[in-house]
Amino acid sequence: MNNAPATNTAPVTKNAPAANTAPVTDDAPVTVTVIGLGLMGQALATAFLKAGHPTTVWNRTPAKAEDLAARGAAVAPTVGEAVLASSLIVVCLSDSAAVHDTVGPHRAELAGRTLVNLTSGTSDEARETAAWATDFAYLDGAIMAIPEVISRPEAFLLFSGAPEAFERHEETLKTLGNAVFFGEDPGLASLYDVALLGVMWGTLNAFLHGAALLGAAKVDASAFAPFANQWLSSVTGFVSAYAEQIDRGAYPAEDAALETHLATMKYLVRESAAAGIDTDWPARIQALAERAIEAGHTGAGYAGLIEVFRGQA
Amino acid sequence: MNNAPATNTAPVTKNAPAANTAPVTDDAPVTVTVIGLGLMGQALATAFLKAGHPTTVWNRTPAKAEDLAARGAAVAPTVGEAVLASSLIVVCLSDSAAVHDTVGPHRAELAGRTLVNLTSGTSDEARETAAWATDFAYLDGAIMAIPEVISRPEAFLLFSGAPEAFERHEETLKTLGNAVFFGEDPGLASLYDVALLGVMWGTLNAFLHGAALLGAAKVDASAFAPFANQWLSSVTGFVSAYAEQIDRGAYPAEDAALETHLATMKYLVRESAAAGIDTDWPARIQALAERAIEAGHTGAGYAGLIEVFRGQA
Repeated sequence: MNNAPATNTAPVTKNAPAANTAPVTDDAPVTVTVIGLGLMGQALATAFLKAGHPTTVWNRTPAKAEDLAARGAAVAPTVGEAVLASSLIVVCLSDSAAVHDTVGPHRAELAGRTLVNLTSGTSDEARETAAWATDFAYLDGAIMAIPEVISRPEAFLLFSGAPEAFERHEETLKTLGNAVFFGEDPGLASLYDVALLGVMWGTLNAFLHGAALLGAAKVDASAFAPFANQWLSSVTGFVSAYAEQIDRGAYPAEDAALETHLATMKYLVRESAAAGIDTDWPARIQALAERAIEAGHTGAGYAGLIEVFRGQA
Repeated sequence: MNNAPATNTAPVTKNAPAANTAPVTDDAPVTVTVIGLGLMGQALATAFLKAGHPTTVWNRTPAKAEDLAARGAAVAPTVGEAVLASSLIVVCLSDSAAVHDTVGPHRAELAGRTLVNLTSGTSDEARETAAWATDFAYLDGAIMAIPEVISRPEAFLLFSGAPEAFERHEETLKTLGNAVFFGEDPGLASLYDVALLGVMWGTLNAFLHGAALLGAAKVDASAFAPFANQWLSSVTGFVSAYAEQIDRGAYPAEDAALETHLATMKYLVRESAAAGIDTDWPARIQALAERAIEAGHTGAGYAGLIEVFRGQA
């Protein structure tokens, strides 16, 4: 950690060896630039600083860099200088448009470096950015964590794109948390991101609906939560079993058939109505099971519902 | 275990001491009757037999009792005799109507015994049955397990109703799995049951939708499942935190505000459309967040959505 401008440290790039410093050894910490200092960007820069990486930061509003500067970050006056300062450039902005506006004009400076884009976006946007990144390595990424847990093992970061760039910077990226690489298709990190967030929303909505139902019978949400969480650990077993069925393309009712689920879904709708709470959410769940059964998946297990989501039922 | 008819074993009831056998000691295994021998009823009877309980069974179609008889169960010729055979009467039938048809005429024989109803039903049905059970102890129950895991620790059984009956028979009920008692309101086991099943359906639907999305990008469901399951363990942390917020009645955005979630929900809808899969499920999730925000929960965290489910937003 130092307060010297990061332009004086060695950029560890593959094609552009550092010209003005000592030869790069295996032990030299990778130089890192963080562009975008929202709460997440600040957490990322903090993690790199703590791990001993010479860290340069840039933000449209320079005030957001002050705390980081006090803790040893070099503050670059321009995006171009921020890019030139390091071998690994991490971008964490509000959306893909901001990424293009900010780093778009700096393709020349990016040459030979690695750009890691941790900005939320779609898989198509990630593929477009990757196609534009011809002279440098591009990794698209997503962060499954709140800023507070960055650098802790429960922080979960998803990457896809240039395999050699992930390999080269895996150690550095792991200072942010548990880093996983999904392969060459740069869109995969974004897809995994929204699919995983979808799992969270589905689970949380169901928990909140259940908490509303039990709340109407004077049960505290905190009394329900441990049972919901214990039950979720059983649900992970169903997830694994159903995944194998999906890949085999067969959905035998090893536990309960969709019709059995449907009968109990009707109880949830009825209980919700009796308690005076929302019936739309359970009715929607019931309708999906009915659609699968109507499409001929009678006798199938729960995994057969994937055909409805695929639009094939 | 024996093949003698269960009517010759000692009914360990509170008010009707066994007339024709040795006095009941603390060590005498509780006599159990299982009424209803579907797959689940057979699993229950098997677990009781294995644990050494003198077990009597009855089923409308006697053929289903044959395997159990071969393993030591006494087969009662009538429901009345099945009830008289034991101190603990476990009923597991197709629905509440079947329970009323089957044990309804045997209130006199039930006197002084404990009736445990493991048949699926609503909380109102459970409360009605409890109100009818004036001369005997009534426990309503629900089984969160498939027949195969009965008697293993991952089997999860919910009970509510007469506290003294649960206390008296807790040890015996625990031969079926992890038995939990929710209190005197006999409807609570049914409510917890559907609320927990709801958590499962919400999670599984979201997983299946995500598997369809990733499947369109040639990712196997088995590749997605371990990440979904790992992420679910983070989600249990959100569940616990949100439960506390709900009980406090305040939903501060400690991690991400609903608007932040909403922005990413739109990506999931967009990705689903681009992949040619179902967009209704993510659109519904988006609509719920929008309703919470429109109702004034701007800046709230995800737990604020409970107001929508309560019908108050």
